Amino acid sequence: MIVETQRVRFDSVSLDCGAALAPVDVAYETYGQLNAARSNAILIVHALTGDAHAAGVSHDAGKPGWWDSMVGPGTAFDTDKYFVICSNVLGGCQGTTGPSSINPATGCPYAMSFPVITISDMVRVQKMLVDHLGIERLLSVSGGSMGGMQALQWTVAYPDRVVSAIPIASTARHSAQQIAFNEVGRQAIMSDPDWNQGDYYGKKPPARGLAVARMVGHITYMSDESMREKFGRRLRNKDAYGFDFEIDFEVESYLRYRGSRFVDRFDANSYLFITKAMDYFDLANGTASLGPVMETTKARFLVISFTSDWLYPSYQSQEIVNALRSRNRDVAYCELPSNYGHDAFLVDVAEQTEIIRGFLASTHKEKAG
Amino acid sequence: MIVETQRVRFDSVSLDCGAALAPVDVAYETYGQLNAARSNAILIVHALTGDAHAAGVSHDAGKPGWWDSMVGPGTAFDTDKYFVICSNVLGGCQGTTGPSSINPATGCPYAMSFPVITISDMVRVQKMLVDHLGIERLLSVSGGSMGGMQALQWTVAYPDRVVSAIPIASTARHSAQQIAFNEVGRQAIMSDPDWNQGDYYGKKPPARGLAVARMVGHITYMSDESMREKFGRRLRNKDAYGFDFEIDFEVESYLRYRGSRFVDRFDANSYLFITKAMDYFDLANGTASLGPVMETTKARFLVISFTSDWLYPSYQSQEIVNALRSRNRDVAYCELPSNYGHDAFLVDVAEQTEIIRGFLASTHKEKAG
Repeated sequence: MIVETQRVRFDSVSLDCGAALAPVDVAYETYGQLNAARSNAILIVHALTGDAHAAGVSHDAGKPGWWDSMVGPGTAFDTDKYFVICSNVLGGCQGTTGPSSINPATGCPYAMSFPVITISDMVRVQKMLVDHLGIERLLSVSGGSMGGMQALQWTVAYPDRVVSAIPIASTARHSAQQIAFNEVGRQAIMSDPDWNQGDYYGKKPPARGLAVARMVGHITYMSDESMREKFGRRLRNKDAYGFDFEIDFEVESYLRYRGSRFVDRFDANSYLFITKAMDYFDLANGTASLGPVMETTKARFLVISFTSDWLYPSYQSQEIVNALRSRNRDVAYCELPSNYGHDAFLVDVAEQTEIIRGFLASTHKEKAG
Repeated sequence: MIVETQRVRFDSVSLDCGAALAPVDVAYETYGQLNAARSNAILIVHALTGDAHAAGVSHDAGKPGWWDSMVGPGTAFDTDKYFVICSNVLGGCQGTTGPSSINPATGCPYAMSFPVITISDMVRVQKMLVDHLGIERLLSVSGGSMGGMQALQWTVAYPDRVVSAIPIASTARHSAQQIAFNEVGRQAIMSDPDWNQGDYYGKKPPARGLAVARMVGHITYMSDESMREKFGRRLRNKDAYGFDFEIDFEVESYLRYRGSRFVDRFDANSYLFITKAMDYFDLANGTASLGPVMETTKARFLVISFTSDWLYPSYQSQEIVNALRSRNRDVAYCELPSNYGHDAFLVDVAEQTEIIRGFLASTHKEKAG
């Protein structure tokens, strides 16, 4: 399945911070066919560093999509049955307008003059895309991690436009620990002199700071157990400790490699803006209980979490489930056993596939019937 | 209890890496009185960023010791009964020779020419101090985190010199996850241009990198729950999000403050050398089982871990306990309930005190008897 990223330009979007952004480009991909009733459209929403290329092989780079094992013919989001859409989020750096985009007022990249965005702003732009594609109601909206936040926001902001939602390994609001890990990443970037208050475009980017941010991220995406299984205390190309500050352990080598590679594909300012959006996100708007906001929703829910995910622990998914149940909403919850930590939503495909296929089939049938 | 840090200079020490270090200064404090039989001495060993000032109020700075609630009259390590010693570790920056010390061969600080040190080297220097103090056998050696590693190393390296050991919230070897968190800290320091390959003495130190390293550390020392209780999603001096990159959340403010303060009291190169020593430490010397090395030990053991400590999880303490039991050694194990995460060994005093007091009393009695 060779796919090509498409682009659409919208004149303007009004943001939560009060500013307007004009114009707004959105990069997106679609897979499968929209049926005549326009009732089989599913929106896939990506996590912190994802992009519009969820599935298939990209026309340009030949790269598989970030959720290729879950989106495609015969998979969980079966493109033989459904019309699947995925777009790069607002504030991103993979085709949708973000801090690295040119500000038409100045002719220069926005950099830190980019308006602060929220998850709700991201979803507002996604709704513009869905309108543009002529889809009245999405059969489902689904994603993991920050993708789950967007899925939840859809059900609250546009309750008549989503039949179902599948938030995976996600939360209705970040905990202090999640904010703290994001803040470390931001501080690593902002304390790199090459960050230069965000004005590094056309110059040397803050590669060292962004690499450190990514290293922290990777540790939090894996579980203690999956790191032990993958690396243990194995040494890298040596029989004994080097007694120096070169790489001794394979896990060090892996983290440095992943950190350095990340710099080639991701913009540091986008990292700042998107992590802030995640930290600001609070479905309950600062109130203690999620119950009241859930009264707005009309969707069916399938909430999924993973046993070894310590970054987005199951209790956060259960909080969502309990709030929905307290308002008598239609919600199924699955805590799946996995050793992969937060990465499980990307790599632990088999059980997710079974559960999501069944949920989508029954949702589609009920809606059609 | 006003205490003064003392210093002793040793001519030389031979290190695991093959090099010799000469001379070696050791900063230490003692509390309580050594009895006539010289049988009541306890060595307290500190964690990554600790120092010789474990207890009392320092003569110079008026600062309480880092384990003041556990060491002193009537506490767990009761200085009315025991003679307690605490020294700054080799490689440290609080009076014991480390990378910031002057290399007599050059007249300049060692910086990165300091030899790579190990936990075993730290313990070797502690034994020189104990010899210097005229103590043949320690009644106990105890510490949390890296202190626990040193306590374990004592029992293996000098089995005839320690009657008992109390490793707390510790491990016989770092997991991939623990190495990974240390590596992130090292990369944060080494990617700060002010680090300058370690040659920053008398110039601007790598304050930003060291602060980021400390921020990561602090997150790992707390539990998800203790961060939620302490900070939640509370905002810092504002009613609503700032929609900027200033501090929004209290947890951000706390981490930035702790990061920036740390720079005033700790040397970045010491952070590099000591974290490397922790990562290298492997009581089993690269073999799969801890059993064989435990055959060397003659001490009684009290092993303590905390339920919410995810950085040094209980299974690591249990691995030590199981290995000791497999060799029929005298070992007690307590997993204490606590919400404080890894910090519990410093702050959750009540239950630790009960358990340690009893253990020390029976050890002292048996030994005297």
